[in-house]
Amino acid sequence: MGEPVPMVEIWRGDLLESLHSGHAVICGADGDILRAWGDPGTVIYPRSSCKMIQALPLVTSGAAAKYGLGSEQLALACASHNGAAIHTDRVSAWLDRLGLGDADFRCGPQEPADLSARDALIRAHERPCQVHNNCSGKHAGFLTLAAHMGAGPDYVEIDHPVQQAALAAFEDATGEDSPGYGIDGCSAPNFATTLHGLARAMARFASAHDRSDRASTAAAQLTGAMIAHPDLVAGEGRACTALMRAMEGRAAVKTGAEAVFTAILPEKRLGVAVKITDGATRASECAITAILAGLGVIDPASPAARAYLNAPLLNRRGMACGSIRPAAALG
Amino acid sequence: MGEPVPMVEIWRGDLLESLHSGHAVICGADGDILRAWGDPGTVIYPRSSCKMIQALPLVTSGAAAKYGLGSEQLALACASHNGAAIHTDRVSAWLDRLGLGDADFRCGPQEPADLSARDALIRAHERPCQVHNNCSGKHAGFLTLAAHMGAGPDYVEIDHPVQQAALAAFEDATGEDSPGYGIDGCSAPNFATTLHGLARAMARFASAHDRSDRASTAAAQLTGAMIAHPDLVAGEGRACTALMRAMEGRAAVKTGAEAVFTAILPEKRLGVAVKITDGATRASECAITAILAGLGVIDPASPAARAYLNAPLLNRRGMACGSIRPAAALG
Repeated sequence: MGEPVPMVEIWRGDLLESLHSGHAVICGADGDILRAWGDPGTVIYPRSSCKMIQALPLVTSGAAAKYGLGSEQLALACASHNGAAIHTDRVSAWLDRLGLGDADFRCGPQEPADLSARDALIRAHERPCQVHNNCSGKHAGFLTLAAHMGAGPDYVEIDHPVQQAALAAFEDATGEDSPGYGIDGCSAPNFATTLHGLARAMARFASAHDRSDRASTAAAQLTGAMIAHPDLVAGEGRACTALMRAMEGRAAVKTGAEAVFTAILPEKRLGVAVKITDGATRASECAITAILAGLGVIDPASPAARAYLNAPLLNRRGMACGSIRPAAALG
Repeated sequence: MGEPVPMVEIWRGDLLESLHSGHAVICGADGDILRAWGDPGTVIYPRSSCKMIQALPLVTSGAAAKYGLGSEQLALACASHNGAAIHTDRVSAWLDRLGLGDADFRCGPQEPADLSARDALIRAHERPCQVHNNCSGKHAGFLTLAAHMGAGPDYVEIDHPVQQAALAAFEDATGEDSPGYGIDGCSAPNFATTLHGLARAMARFASAHDRSDRASTAAAQLTGAMIAHPDLVAGEGRACTALMRAMEGRAAVKTGAEAVFTAILPEKRLGVAVKITDGATRASECAITAILAGLGVIDPASPAARAYLNAPLLNRRGMACGSIRPAAALG
């Protein structure tokens, strides 16, 4: 990795207690870099920040239309959700319509981040299911595509037609040959790219409504679904949901594990990608908000922006002891 | 802060996905630096890694003896515990003996990290109490000292005699004037020092049994209590507990928030302090283990050491997708 730049500061009292560095790229519709921090050539795993790319074949193949998926299902295919009832009810119903059940997933179970859903499971002495996994919407999309293709059940294997379709879509969107892949927390392959490649892909999504090819039509549809359903893409208390609500259609944003964050700005036809080197989500949330504020798509004085641009560090009596702030480079 | 050095690598597949940098110091009994990584002059908050220093006045004042505290209570005074029954039962009994209750704490409530304790609360529709706060043993120590001093109830205020005693003990142990303080997650003041100062304090604890002054006797007693009760200092599944068990008395170790880690090596009369710049605990756990292995006090082939020297990154089906490893500088 090239040299990252200081991006997010953790202050407690008068002392800079911790510091997060990273890389970021803003790309235009032509794929060229408009602005960069650190090294745009840094090779990263986008993790969940590229779920909208992984969902492209679901739409371009005709599977989404054939199975009657609406914008809610497409938003869930791009989601890292909280496992709240609004998410799991919809994913379960979707599975049901495919004639499939929880055991057909390959994502593994995960305790819901949503506290009501978590506590309900604990009180019922039930263990989390695969549908509670934050990636279950993406996996429902994979299962839909596999059904459409008539392909086998092990849809997360690298040589499965679903993953080969995801790889082709990924390389097309990023404009790069992927140098390899890692296995994600949900067992699906996650393809590597440069940060520039990821920002370029986001810019292609942002400008997709200018084009009429099948991939662009699908990209515009997925972006629209994310923007239409901020609550399905993440959930209450989450950055993606709060920021998208505050931007009122001006951007779709998506977090990924290990502090990746992407943004699609359709009105400006810009794409953004951020990677904090150390993998801390508190920092990627702050950095993407600062960049979105700099681009004028979120009001830095709005409650949602302030929650990430100057997030208070609270102690366990609820008193502010410090804050999380963008470093000078992002200011 | 001075320039940190790469210390811990996060690998997924064949790619270095994330990287943690930091500072570390090993000090001898004379307070001199034996070895350093990064900048030993970096000013930090030790956070919970200095609880054994904060507990010194409890012993040196005679309060611990007067109230009949044994090694279990002293270990809990130095603990960041899981809020399991073995911790909360003992802290509650201690409070009871002081004629005090949960409302006398000033640490705030915290959901227990121990899953059995957490689930029992949720099933009983009860909210966590202050005794569940990972710092409740430290606060029981503060309350004991306040009772001994006949001081007021607001024992976390900076001008309270308990905190002024903690400051004096801190400056004496670190050999430095503290440049200031922040408010910790548990509402107590946390005094700043250089990483060298923190390592020097740990070396004084490590060599305390060579001296007979009151502070040294107290330091030896607290170190002995931590070593005697690894399960009380943290809990099952936690690095402090696992590493101390594996080292069989050769070291006391203590984690602190924002990725500080300290170690006291009585046989070698050495003190160690680590700060990962970005505040990630997964990295401080790996770094301290690598340093302890380098010092020969933990067998790198032991299960406990391997769990932190080459911790697998598991996906939600339990499959290894990568690992957390020390960088070359610590190898």
